[in-house]
Amino acid sequence: MVRVTVAIPGRPYDVTIGSGLLEGSADHLPELPGAGGAFVISDRDIAERWFEPVAAGLTARGLAPVLLTVPAGEEAKSLQSYEALLRQLAGREAHRSDVVVGLGGGAVGDLAGFVAATYMRGLRVVQVPTTLTAQVDAAIGGKSAINLPEGKNLVGAFHQPEAVLADLDTLATLDDRAYRSGLAEVAKVALTLDEDLLAMLEDDPSPVVARDTAVMETVVARCVAAKANVVAVDERDTGDRLILNYGHTVGHALERLDSFAGRTHGEAVAIGMIAAARLAEIRGLAADLTSRTERLLASLGLTPDGALPPTDDVLDAIRLDKKYRAGVRFVLLEGVGRPIVVDDVPDEEVRSALEQIGATG
Amino acid sequence: MVRVTVAIPGRPYDVTIGSGLLEGSADHLPELPGAGGAFVISDRDIAERWFEPVAAGLTARGLAPVLLTVPAGEEAKSLQSYEALLRQLAGREAHRSDVVVGLGGGAVGDLAGFVAATYMRGLRVVQVPTTLTAQVDAAIGGKSAINLPEGKNLVGAFHQPEAVLADLDTLATLDDRAYRSGLAEVAKVALTLDEDLLAMLEDDPSPVVARDTAVMETVVARCVAAKANVVAVDERDTGDRLILNYGHTVGHALERLDSFAGRTHGEAVAIGMIAAARLAEIRGLAADLTSRTERLLASLGLTPDGALPPTDDVLDAIRLDKKYRAGVRFVLLEGVGRPIVVDDVPDEEVRSALEQIGATG
Repeated sequence: MVRVTVAIPGRPYDVTIGSGLLEGSADHLPELPGAGGAFVISDRDIAERWFEPVAAGLTARGLAPVLLTVPAGEEAKSLQSYEALLRQLAGREAHRSDVVVGLGGGAVGDLAGFVAATYMRGLRVVQVPTTLTAQVDAAIGGKSAINLPEGKNLVGAFHQPEAVLADLDTLATLDDRAYRSGLAEVAKVALTLDEDLLAMLEDDPSPVVARDTAVMETVVARCVAAKANVVAVDERDTGDRLILNYGHTVGHALERLDSFAGRTHGEAVAIGMIAAARLAEIRGLAADLTSRTERLLASLGLTPDGALPPTDDVLDAIRLDKKYRAGVRFVLLEGVGRPIVVDDVPDEEVRSALEQIGATG
Repeated sequence: MVRVTVAIPGRPYDVTIGSGLLEGSADHLPELPGAGGAFVISDRDIAERWFEPVAAGLTARGLAPVLLTVPAGEEAKSLQSYEALLRQLAGREAHRSDVVVGLGGGAVGDLAGFVAATYMRGLRVVQVPTTLTAQVDAAIGGKSAINLPEGKNLVGAFHQPEAVLADLDTLATLDDRAYRSGLAEVAKVALTLDEDLLAMLEDDPSPVVARDTAVMETVVARCVAAKANVVAVDERDTGDRLILNYGHTVGHALERLDSFAGRTHGEAVAIGMIAAARLAEIRGLAADLTSRTERLLASLGLTPDGALPPTDDVLDAIRLDKKYRAGVRFVLLEGVGRPIVVDDVPDEEVRSALEQIGATG
């Protein structure tokens, strides 16, 4: 078991990473003074497997667990689910001193976090991420969000959790694509922020691919620690947190295109990292970065397959991303472990990078 | 013109109080670096009178004003209005660097604040309160909220504004009941936090009742300063802010009862302050407080009229208030200007106080 502190000034909290955390949750839940009810937000599949041990731990700690289920996947992050959860909390007379527990993947955590941030102007929340993506990325840092029909994550709040419990046993239940999607975020951290982790993955990726619990404890802990360092100095996403978007400029654009539908977030980000590597080479920032990135991703089972959308479509989708209204902005590497933010990358360079990695002109 | 700073640690902001602020808004709006669009949330009546000068000021300051209207009154604070506003912002591609302006009474300000708090995890907001209640109370302190069918203000956020512009010219357009409702909050501040203001009101309430602009500049500024002092040490409502609930334990209970329907918030709070005064006397905390409170309120046009609901109904409604789940809690005075928070006031004492001020047993 490893504990990593997210040192948000004035409100630090611990992320506990290990095996058996949920079966022994009574021992691993944080102190929650004054809490009476614990409202566990989860989807039906996750709840079927994990609600019982979590509820037992909450009960042992003197809290009354109540399960509130939402649809699985991104569908959960709707205004409709948000409203339904708020009204269920109110109908059950949830009180300001009660707690919300987000038990599930990134979508459940984002939704549970936003409900907790806004019901009675803020209940405490404990995040229990059950996917690799959520354990290494989504559950860390206090971002919560729901979607609008007009776009993803357009509504939300910064609301740091009281604690995060990342139980590695949950990884065994993920299907291969979901697990690999999480590995793309692991690769992102290795390339941008943690050269030791990169060396470890390059040296022998097989225990990571095989979900070896001891190795994954180290991998998840390193990813959490890297993100925690960034979040601690930029809680509100006004500067350094941008680095965490490495691979996401092109990745988000791909996700927005119908012709890319059906791929996972990680698959899109993997291609985004290859495009960013190529762009860094075109700009003369780094050498040999693309092939190294491709090798790393391939060793993790993330070889891009299928045709990329036409270059113009990707460029249009990049420009539509409201985060980048002031000009197309990329996080690029001046070598591994040395991310920089580059504003106003010319279209021609983005176009070249995309076409060199297989998009059609 | 008077300027009062709300000294929230790290994020102080100014409340400007005066006449002609909106007609000259180009000179009074705060610096808003980087802002492009200004989304003015208002109701149709207020917008008809005040949008034009505000929009002219925004335009002069290089912002593009867009008017988004909501229903008048408490109806505005619904999930439906919230969703409609979010989708209008998204549809118009509102960006993280844009601003929201809340132009109206307390309901509009609460809704605009919550939209600003949560769209893209937070846009800057400027509050332009146009009722006395909003100028002395609702617009100060960063509380935002919407209602659920299950109860008022159950969903919201703390989101401090960039600035508050309280234009005294807007007071002239209020009907008498709305204006008097605001005077109840003024009386609350005078009784709990500002003996000089109390002396001023007791000495000669007539210019206040007559809405004399010069006198009201002083009155609003004193109320804002008193609330600012409390908010600066308890932004998140975990301690001192409770004092601001003086008169609100019984006041909120009355507002929740059908038999009290049609009265204003201020009328309910006025009766709540008389009940709290009587309770302080029953407990031996203060002498002659009830008659002094009644005289003050009467001089401001706030003489309770009509029958009070039955005592048991009021007691039940007090207990239902989720804020007070741990026992019935009152803010009471140990004399004017000396508020204390008293937990677990026995039912018999509340009953006596209510019956002594005219509730039927």
